[in-house]
Amino acid sequence: MSHDGVTMSQHNTHNTHRSDDIQPFHVMAILAEAQALQAQGVDVIHLEVGEPDFPTPEPMIEAAVSALRAGKTGYTPALGMPVLREKIADYYWQRFAVRIDPRRVILTPGASGALLLLSAARLQPGQRMLLADPGYPCNRHFARLFEAHGQLITTTAASRFQLTPELIAQHWQSNTRVALVASPANPTGAVLDLPHLRALADAVRVQGGEFWVDEIYQGLNYNKAPQTVLAVADDAVVLNSFSKYFGMTGWRLGWSVVPLAWVPTLEKLAQNMFLAPPTPAQHAALAAFDAESLAIMETRRHILSERRDYLLTALPELGFEVPVVPDGAFYVYVDASRYTDDSLLFCQQLLADTGVAITPGIDFGDHAGHHHLRFAFTTPLPRLQQAMARIQEWLAQR
Amino acid sequence: MSHDGVTMSQHNTHNTHRSDDIQPFHVMAILAEAQALQAQGVDVIHLEVGEPDFPTPEPMIEAAVSALRAGKTGYTPALGMPVLREKIADYYWQRFAVRIDPRRVILTPGASGALLLLSAARLQPGQRMLLADPGYPCNRHFARLFEAHGQLITTTAASRFQLTPELIAQHWQSNTRVALVASPANPTGAVLDLPHLRALADAVRVQGGEFWVDEIYQGLNYNKAPQTVLAVADDAVVLNSFSKYFGMTGWRLGWSVVPLAWVPTLEKLAQNMFLAPPTPAQHAALAAFDAESLAIMETRRHILSERRDYLLTALPELGFEVPVVPDGAFYVYVDASRYTDDSLLFCQQLLADTGVAITPGIDFGDHAGHHHLRFAFTTPLPRLQQAMARIQEWLAQR
Repeated sequence: MSHDGVTMSQHNTHNTHRSDDIQPFHVMAILAEAQALQAQGVDVIHLEVGEPDFPTPEPMIEAAVSALRAGKTGYTPALGMPVLREKIADYYWQRFAVRIDPRRVILTPGASGALLLLSAARLQPGQRMLLADPGYPCNRHFARLFEAHGQLITTTAASRFQLTPELIAQHWQSNTRVALVASPANPTGAVLDLPHLRALADAVRVQGGEFWVDEIYQGLNYNKAPQTVLAVADDAVVLNSFSKYFGMTGWRLGWSVVPLAWVPTLEKLAQNMFLAPPTPAQHAALAAFDAESLAIMETRRHILSERRDYLLTALPELGFEVPVVPDGAFYVYVDASRYTDDSLLFCQQLLADTGVAITPGIDFGDHAGHHHLRFAFTTPLPRLQQAMARIQEWLAQR
Repeated sequence: MSHDGVTMSQHNTHNTHRSDDIQPFHVMAILAEAQALQAQGVDVIHLEVGEPDFPTPEPMIEAAVSALRAGKTGYTPALGMPVLREKIADYYWQRFAVRIDPRRVILTPGASGALLLLSAARLQPGQRMLLADPGYPCNRHFARLFEAHGQLITTTAASRFQLTPELIAQHWQSNTRVALVASPANPTGAVLDLPHLRALADAVRVQGGEFWVDEIYQGLNYNKAPQTVLAVADDAVVLNSFSKYFGMTGWRLGWSVVPLAWVPTLEKLAQNMFLAPPTPAQHAALAAFDAESLAIMETRRHILSERRDYLLTALPELGFEVPVVPDGAFYVYVDASRYTDDSLLFCQQLLADTGVAITPGIDFGDHAGHHHLRFAFTTPLPRLQQAMARIQEWLAQR
């Protein structure tokens, strides 16, 4: 290996151990404080949690129960049960009119497992992954784990806090390998439409890079039917999950759709890193695409939609600006600059004074996080109303 | 960061991408061929699989079923449910008379998850981890994933294929950080007794290193009661799992016992890498220490013991030398040099000719793997007898 400048610049970019560069979510401190308050008898309203208040749909639980009682408790193949990979491929056809080879669908321990696996397989030390700021904080940490870099690109409300082809062209460097976007996004709920996805895929392809699209909130769409990047870019990499729309957070099952040529490498890495995704989760997921399960999910989507509509009226009335109307996921990301320039302190005080827990914008990036907040509508409407009343009273007294 | 020699030597040790340095298990090719033969109607006897032929004990399945039906399908804390961490700590007291702080017990997605997490947290690029050859191949791959090195140390039957204090002193270098041993070991089943563990821990402590002990086969012991390194070295790191003794392979739940000071860092990394270990598995595991479950496990251990006794007689009669009598796990590792110097070819021919699938020694290291074989006794005694009869006939005709 050469001792030239490229090598040096690749390896001298990290002065610290990876574990020093990976920060805990600030919301975890909020959550711990919320739990301490609850233990003291305070009625805490949780608007900080990225997990809906619905258990897994019953048909899926019963599918798992039947499999477990039939003794299906052993390992599956490293990339998951072939029959489930086929069902997911079929779902792309039924729902999105996109045909994909089932062998391109790989199952992982959560979408976290998919990002871990893909980062290990595709990123070399020193390489870069472009990400939007604001965005989900773990994504850049996966790059850092493998001695690569998540490079945060400041975005604005003008592009709905999403990357644009122009930003990709502007920030792409010789050692950039991947651009990662999320649709619907966290914390904004912003959905990328197909023309935008196509333009992004083109911009990345021109650079010879890889386009990874986080679609883990797919299905939780409020204005238009959900879509997938695979409809416009067959070479894109999709990250998805049974956690959110399918209501399986605790089971830890995600999937990825990858180029067929990558599968042997991903399989051997998955054998080593995970052995296999959890078997009970796979049996539950086999029932996820049944009409009965999908009907439950659609009912839940309507409930979430009502909560969203309420917050989109209530939050601006309280003086929180909504720079981007969320058309997916279950979050409203607001500009609180009228009230604070220290979002963590604001969240801490709000919790201490009112028992309402929300997430500070600093968890989602370096740029404007200090005056943004994220409200999750993962709690019933009456509780949301109660929370807004408490906040209104609190703001009036400040 | 300096451009000095140390930095260069750390970073120039890998010329290739990590995915090129991580090999698939050769046994996977055997397994694929076995499945192809089965599809053609051949009666394949599986002695290659590291997974017992017992499903999860019923009380544990029913514990998971009750939790799932009660809607307990959401995320747990990143390091697992506190009540389960306490139960595991209590198990160390009840079974091994070792007191540990429950906060030192962290739950992970399988023991694979524990090794992934610890490797990410503790290994810097270029650092070394010492491992015995032969040994479980994934262990060195975890180091490679994070740009560190698994350094295989050739061991012999004289030390029961385990590392010794002398080997540690001899091979420790300035950039060595960890020595990893397994007890019971894979592929040999060799158990380290407490004096040996204490001497190893001392040898590593003298170097200022970390001593990691893989105890995932703990409980599957045939000569003496199982023990833990924590009885003689409170600063050792333990890796363990619900997969083997507790019969939960497919659920993906492991644990580690770590120094208390590491827990905050491991927690933030686990939040990022996994979010949390699987919830259904944790509810099943809550019932693992009940008397009813433990009685089932002990019955199974006796069944495995009978199979082991049979193989320890039958394999030498067939001309396979057993250099180390396995006192734990469910493998017999044999020297087949009387018959082959190409263990993979031998396994392929044996499978093709007789339908008996075993694992070639080359999966477990570089040294003497070409003339060793591993037989797993994860299949019922009559099938083991059938397999031995087929092998006897085949060897007679060669």
